[in-house]
Amino acid sequence: MTPHPLGAALVGPALFSPSVQHLLDLVGIFVFAISGALLAVRKNLDVFGMWVLAEVTGLGGGVLRDLIIGAVPPAAFTDLGYFLTPLGATVLVFFLHPEVERINRAVMVMDAAGLGLFCVTGTIKAHTYGLGLTASAALGVASAVGGGVIRDVLAQEVPSLLRWDRDLYAVPALVGAAIVALLIHFHAFTAFGSGFAAVVAFVLRLLAMRYGWRAPRAWHRRSSATEAPDRV
Amino acid sequence: MTPHPLGAALVGPALFSPSVQHLLDLVGIFVFAISGALLAVRKNLDVFGMWVLAEVTGLGGGVLRDLIIGAVPPAAFTDLGYFLTPLGATVLVFFLHPEVERINRAVMVMDAAGLGLFCVTGTIKAHTYGLGLTASAALGVASAVGGGVIRDVLAQEVPSLLRWDRDLYAVPALVGAAIVALLIHFHAFTAFGSGFAAVVAFVLRLLAMRYGWRAPRAWHRRSSATEAPDRV
Amino acid sequence: MTPHPLGAALVGPALFSPSVQHLLDLVGIFVFAISGALLAVRKNLDVFGMWVLAEVTGLGGGVLRDLIIGAVPPAAFTDLGYFLTPLGATVLVFFLHPEVERINRAVMVMDAAGLGLFCVTGTIKAHTYGLGLTASAALGVASAVGGGVIRDVLAQEVPSLLRWDRDLYAVPALVGAAIVALLIHFHAFTAFGSGFAAVVAFVLRLLAMRYGWRAPRAWHRRSSATEAPDRV
Repeated sequence: MTPHPLGAALVGPALFSPSVQHLLDLVGIFVFAISGALLAVRKNLDVFGMWVLAEVTGLGGGVLRDLIIGAVPPAAFTDLGYFLTPLGATVLVFFLHPEVERINRAVMVMDAAGLGLFCVTGTIKAHTYGLGLTASAALGVASAVGGGVIRDVLAQEVPSLLRWDRDLYAVPALVGAAIVALLIHFHAFTAFGSGFAAVVAFVLRLLAMRYGWRAPRAWHRRSSATEAPDRV
Repeated sequence: MTPHPLGAALVGPALFSPSVQHLLDLVGIFVFAISGALLAVRKNLDVFGMWVLAEVTGLGGGVLRDLIIGAVPPAAFTDLGYFLTPLGATVLVFFLHPEVERINRAVMVMDAAGLGLFCVTGTIKAHTYGLGLTASAALGVASAVGGGVIRDVLAQEVPSLLRWDRDLYAVPALVGAAIVALLIHFHAFTAFGSGFAAVVAFVLRLLAMRYGWRAPRAWHRRSSATEAPDRV
Repeated sequence: MTPHPLGAALVGPALFSPSVQHLLDLVGIFVFAISGALLAVRKNLDVFGMWVLAEVTGLGGGVLRDLIIGAVPPAAFTDLGYFLTPLGATVLVFFLHPEVERINRAVMVMDAAGLGLFCVTGTIKAHTYGLGLTASAALGVASAVGGGVIRDVLAQEVPSLLRWDRDLYAVPALVGAAIVALLIHFHAFTAFGSGFAAVVAFVLRLLAMRYGWRAPRAWHRRSSATEAPDRV
């Protein structure tokens, strides 16, 4: 499937000028890649393992989205900047990981910004390639969280996205993607609306971290589960 | 690759009318999604983790097949019913998981029906897109079992498909897919033959559960393995 | 994306005649598949699990590359020989796995040859489909090591590719792929250069095994990590 010739027109004006958009993409990829490289350090992997986890965390969600919408080769393989950014993150973490760990709070704030940005741009890109609004929103969420899931699977951890003892991560992305889909549905999609959706997702994620918001587990949990919450 | 213009003619008449076929697809996806949501409950994941596992278990096999045959975007992203069915399974399991566990036998019988159905329809779809019969049968099996493998990988379990201490699961799908491929090869493919293949796979799976059929492990197992069968 | 009509011309003459190239591909797939089937035996999986691991190890890297460059259906699903070779490896390991384990050193030498071959042919194929040289080299490495990563994820092991306590595996592939990319960049790509790159990767891998070369971990490791090197 090729992008709709009226792709841009379909979803309204772009959120930012192309160069600003590209810069924001690189920032988001960089921050995601840092989380991959840091997990590699914690799991005692070598420098090549750090690089691989940095690449898949930074680029994995977008590659998954692009394969599904038929945008091959994925942007990660046609834009050299996308590919090299995780390498920079790897070098930084390799030499300075204790310092990076120390500013972990700042890294997580930037990660929240990347989450807000990618859930919006992912939804828009999927819709530009002709997918319906529900599927586009789902792929927007997948772009934002997919890299982290692949990172955790490769590092042999239960994806933190799925764990009940982690603060909400996918829900903010879901809200951001849903706002974009609703705006498009009601023909009210503008650059402002797009920015609004990204900010809502960003702020929701910050609030979830600040107040420890978590998603509920299934009802009627047996007491044994309550007694052993860490058996995951 | 686009579907062969004579796709339907190539593989003979459809097994069911399109609306019946679609309904059966939804039932199969629903049952697979239930198994994903139930595993999420057992692994103590939150409600979002339940939803994610339900979606990947219900849709993962078909998405994998569609990416490989070049049917993008995959049907799971173009048919809203496919996407929403796992959400329904999640809601059901969220509120009623003890009751769903109690009728686990019934769920597994429906799962066997989904297995029989998907190995047949997956083989037919791959062949319609121009793949050879062996590759089509392999993709039929992948459609039927792929979702469960992704489910187990995300939940950090050795895929039950691969474990020697689980009843046969892939072999019934393999038999069903092989029957379809043989019927097409001998120009004997009909709606009846297609239904026959699905029923054979279904019954084989039921028998495997009833009598605990298992696949052998490699010959010459050292005694240590026999003494510690659970070290997987 | 379709292959460049001047694909072959773009990258110069082929390394080998097509039939020799095909035979070498089959040998590489066979050896990779053996490593998958052997891991299945060690993890106590049944014969079907052996077959699945043999297929994904032998073919996974190439399928991943083909999905990303848009070469669908992947070669693994259009060439019956590619698909059946891992079945042969499974049968061999099923009956003779103690003997195969005993010649493990020979298997690993052949595996090194497969690594050298696939990093070169993977890079060339990606470039033929129009990808840039950096992306092509990355996909060359992914073709060579991807199957092993999928094998380890399915078997619930931290991918040996990422572990610091394993001899270098990806670096030889990276060097081989980089040589090919540089030769193409400087318009010096010939069959001889292609063979040279494969041999360099092969020899580097043999030396890494012989002398236990490992990649470093991040700087400033805390002493706790040094004391517990096996906590991965």
